[in-house]
Amino acid sequence: MTLLKNLESAAPGTAVALSDLLDELPYNEQGLIAAIAQDASSHEVLMLGWMDRTAIERTLSEGQVWYFSRSRQVYWRKGETSGHTQKLLQLAFDCDGDALLLSVDQTGPACHTNRKNCFYLQVQGNNVVVDAAPVSNSGI
Amino acid sequence: MTLLKNLESAAPGTAVALSDLLDELPYNEQGLIAAIAQDASSHEVLMLGWMDRTAIERTLSEGQVWYFSRSRQVYWRKGETSGHTQKLLQLAFDCDGDALLLSVDQTGPACHTNRKNCFYLQVQGNNVVVDAAPVSNSGI
Repeated sequence: MTLLKNLESAAPGTAVALSDLLDELPYNEQGLIAAIAQDASSHEVLMLGWMDRTAIERTLSEGQVWYFSRSRQVYWRKGETSGHTQKLLQLAFDCDGDALLLSVDQTGPACHTNRKNCFYLQVQGNNVVVDAAPVSNSGI
Repeated sequence: MTLLKNLESAAPGTAVALSDLLDELPYNEQGLIAAIAQDASSHEVLMLGWMDRTAIERTLSEGQVWYFSRSRQVYWRKGETSGHTQKLLQLAFDCDGDALLLSVDQTGPACHTNRKNCFYLQVQGNNVVVDAAPVSNSGI
C-alpha cells in the first residue's frame, strides 16, 4: 500500500505506472475489486460489478467493459449476449484502491432485468418498493 | 434469493417488508455489502464503503450514513471525526442485493484525503494520474 499511501498527498498531475498500481491493489480473497459503472452523460449509477486484474486490463485495452462473474467464475464482456454494452470512457481508482469508478457510454438498459439501472429497489419507510419498470424496447 | 428473484419481474410500486429483504441479502463472508455514496445534487460518485445489516438499519433510522470499517472492524458514522457527514436522502438495493446506492447530502469533502471524492486516481494510457487536489478549506 506504499504507492497508494504516497499518492494521497501527491499533487494533481503526479503520475505513476499503471502496472505498479495494479501490482499493489488490495484485491479481496477472490482476487476481485468492486467496479461501479456510471453513465457518463446522465451520471446515473448503473450497476456494481467485480473485476480482477485481467478484467481491468482487458477493459482498458479493448475500451469495452469486462467483469468477472463471481457466480459463474468466468469473465464476461458486458452486453456480450444482450447487446447492452458499456463503452469505457474513463477509469479511476479510489484512495485505498479497493474500488473502481467506470465512466461509460451505456447501450440500452444496464440491468439484466432490462431496467435502465440495477438500483430499482428503493427503501420507503419499513418497505422496499420497486421503483422502475423494464424498458419495453431494449433501447438499442 | 427467492424474494429478490420475484422482485425482478414485479411491477413498479410493488412493496415488500424491508426486514424480509434484509434477511435475504447475499452478505459476503464478512457479513458485508458494498455501499456506493452518490451526491444527490452533483450526482458525483463520492466513495464506496461497506455496510452490514446493523449499519444499514442504523443509517436508515438516524438518516446519517454509518459504514462498517473492515480494517478497524468497527462501525463508524461518516464524518464523526472529520465533520464531513453524509445525510441520507435515499437508499436503494440493486437487483441481486449485493450493492446499495446511497443518495446523500455530503458536508465537506467525502474523501479522508480531503478531496471532494475518493476517485482521484485516473488512468491515462499506461499511467495513473492524480486528478484532484485536497480541498484547501475543509468545505464546511
